[in-house]
Amino acid sequence: MHLILLSGGSGKRLWPLSNDVKSKQFLKVLPGPNGKHESMVQRVYRQLQEVGGWDSITVAAGASQKDQLGLQLGEEVNIVIEPERRDTFPAIALACSYLHSERGVGLDEAIAVLPVDPFVELDYFKNISKFEALIKDDPKGLVLMGAAPTIPSEKYGYIIPKTKDNVSEVEHFKEKPDTETAQILIDKGALWNCGVFGLKINYITEILKEKYQIEKLNYKNMLDSFASLIKTSFDYEVVERAEKITVLRYEGQWKDLGTWETLTEEMEFSISGKARADDSCRNIHVINELGIPIITMGINDAVVVASRDGILVAEKGETMRLKEFISDFTSRPMHEKRRWGEYEVIDHINYDDGSEALTKKLFLLKDRQISYQYHHNRKEIWTILRGEGLLYLDGEKIVVTAGDVVKISEGQKHGMRALTNLEIIEVQLGNPLIEEDIVRLEMEW
Amino acid sequence: MHLILLSGGSGKRLWPLSNDVKSKQFLKVLPGPNGKHESMVQRVYRQLQEVGGWDSITVAAGASQKDQLGLQLGEEVNIVIEPERRDTFPAIALACSYLHSERGVGLDEAIAVLPVDPFVELDYFKNISKFEALIKDDPKGLVLMGAAPTIPSEKYGYIIPKTKDNVSEVEHFKEKPDTETAQILIDKGALWNCGVFGLKINYITEILKEKYQIEKLNYKNMLDSFASLIKTSFDYEVVERAEKITVLRYEGQWKDLGTWETLTEEMEFSISGKARADDSCRNIHVINELGIPIITMGINDAVVVASRDGILVAEKGETMRLKEFISDFTSRPMHEKRRWGEYEVIDHINYDDGSEALTKKLFLLKDRQISYQYHHNRKEIWTILRGEGLLYLDGEKIVVTAGDVVKISEGQKHGMRALTNLEIIEVQLGNPLIEEDIVRLEMEW
Repeated sequence: MHLILLSGGSGKRLWPLSNDVKSKQFLKVLPGPNGKHESMVQRVYRQLQEVGGWDSITVAAGASQKDQLGLQLGEEVNIVIEPERRDTFPAIALACSYLHSERGVGLDEAIAVLPVDPFVELDYFKNISKFEALIKDDPKGLVLMGAAPTIPSEKYGYIIPKTKDNVSEVEHFKEKPDTETAQILIDKGALWNCGVFGLKINYITEILKEKYQIEKLNYKNMLDSFASLIKTSFDYEVVERAEKITVLRYEGQWKDLGTWETLTEEMEFSISGKARADDSCRNIHVINELGIPIITMGINDAVVVASRDGILVAEKGETMRLKEFISDFTSRPMHEKRRWGEYEVIDHINYDDGSEALTKKLFLLKDRQISYQYHHNRKEIWTILRGEGLLYLDGEKIVVTAGDVVKISEGQKHGMRALTNLEIIEVQLGNPLIEEDIVRLEMEW
Repeated sequence: MHLILLSGGSGKRLWPLSNDVKSKQFLKVLPGPNGKHESMVQRVYRQLQEVGGWDSITVAAGASQKDQLGLQLGEEVNIVIEPERRDTFPAIALACSYLHSERGVGLDEAIAVLPVDPFVELDYFKNISKFEALIKDDPKGLVLMGAAPTIPSEKYGYIIPKTKDNVSEVEHFKEKPDTETAQILIDKGALWNCGVFGLKINYITEILKEKYQIEKLNYKNMLDSFASLIKTSFDYEVVERAEKITVLRYEGQWKDLGTWETLTEEMEFSISGKARADDSCRNIHVINELGIPIITMGINDAVVVASRDGILVAEKGETMRLKEFISDFTSRPMHEKRRWGEYEVIDHINYDDGSEALTKKLFLLKDRQISYQYHHNRKEIWTILRGEGLLYLDGEKIVVTAGDVVKISEGQKHGMRALTNLEIIEVQLGNPLIEEDIVRLEMEW
């Protein structure tokens, strides 16, 4: 069986730790093996290795997640980058085309699609490995996984099976019912929809043929025509139109660590980063990514989270509406991990006339580089704080070291390779200052 | 009558808004006239002008407070700078010597000593103006002011008067009694000691003669010998040894805005700076001096305060022990207002080998300057963000503007005059990076 992991995600529900480029699945806050912390996506990937027996694992993600996935899962992970975010059906179709035309996977082979960040036990993945047998002889076979509900939550989709057997045909679905209805459904034996789908690749190709006139499943073509695919979910395009659906019951723990309440329940330490709580604090979680200290006194049942993006102080149980409450926040990401290292925005000024001044601290990892590039609308001034780098400026190579300063004008080509770990203060001046104002050039280091 | 205002203060009780160079009396958080905010020292100074009739007003302060006092009270304010902090008796003796030898004030004239930051009504100052008549014919006359207690607080000193008259001789004192004793004292008619003293200058000169063999009250000599004076309080040196003390009753409001609880009671707005509280927050005060947003959800009866020094999240009623709780914090001030403008430390890295990298944002006010100076142990790199400046570098004058970069080596002489308002990112590299590593040179702009 071939696995397709969907790596979605806005960063607003776990703000300010997550942001648009650092989605919640990448936060290294869960206790992992050997005393190290791991992220949600690392946990799932590790669990998949432990269960084993997969033909392949492919992650479908947006371009902004590529560096994070490489850093957290290793460079050898298969990643299919969606040219733009267009909901789950196009993402799955793209991943299928990759498997078929690039990896030679037959159209009759089974795939399982799952989210990249469920907080579950190994049985969850063992269940997925049983999907293949269930759809073996049925080109229109579709399998879902249902978890045993613990509370009549209004947050989930409910699957009502025909029988109480481990494997059952599905009678019908109910999306996010009110609490009362949820309780009635649970009493009838309903299961939470885990968002896992098992099917054959040609189930997808048939839909592409019928609805999109795409005759041949080809990765390059799919990349080119991706923007023309309708933004539609797999649920809508496949599940809701399916003639027959099978559900496999999963009895273990299934949690969505998508809010501060659920995430902090799984965290090992109540304080991380530069922080101090007095004896009168009870049931608090303090997470501090800033260099300045946080002091808490007399605070109970609360989360305090600080990053370069902002500071959240919330009573546990009150953050469900966080995403809506900050939905108008449009600020640029203030910290980001990249393949070459990471950066933090340490200061940002917007002037009345529209021009901006932005100061970043850059950490480059030894032997990594910032690509050879130029910007249309900004100058940059680099002050080397620490380490040694090979600067490439207008075709010339220069070794730079602590105390050196590099002035880069608008349009001037520049790149930097870290000869040792390298720290730089970068001042950007221009209008507008956006990450997208970058032209990357080819070069050999 | 001549007034001596004592400007003392560690910054720890109102951390992180106050710090060692920005004591609580300088925080502009109180509602002032014309809709503007004023600081405690500004409020007191304004009230003193409103009452009027003083012969002179002199502020005794530490060197680090000089710029703040000039900025907040106007450059014409009389300031006596203590060469080092040595408690209240040496400070008052120094101020007396200044009045006598520099301002020609006679030894027989009356002075009143008061703190720079009581939160009181005008009657408080009107009462002080009555001190003079009470000690007119008595070279050993000593007058205190007593406020009517509102609660049996353990925080204050209690004065027990002989009678319940407005003016009475003092029977005895009780420093910080427990609540039970305080209630008994209040029932007997005790008053809170407001820390105001009225006496004649020669009361001080007699003590200086007897105990310190200082025969002549001279400002220059006192400055020179200041370090040899014993660190001792006026209470200990004068009040506790006085043969006869008079207390004047003050019936108005008297508050010490020395904790977040008492300060926030007097603040006009519950939210200042970039912050947003959801509807479920009750009785909170959020003060944000950072550029990143603070979000509060479901938090009650709390203060949330953020500055470049740190972040405090505390239940109201729990910050009394703040000073002790952070007493080991020794970090450098991260933001400071100066005569030439202000700075913020936006990044600070301490490396394992003892060297440091520190990034500051400087705001220079038009026509002000950073003095001509050099540093022994650090290089500085200035990137001009905005405005125009006259750089003085090794004796040469150069006009600099946005995008220009100035590299200043160890030992290299440099200064900057702002031709317009001027913004600079300064990167310091060296070991150690301390504000004291500065040699100021004379120059004419």
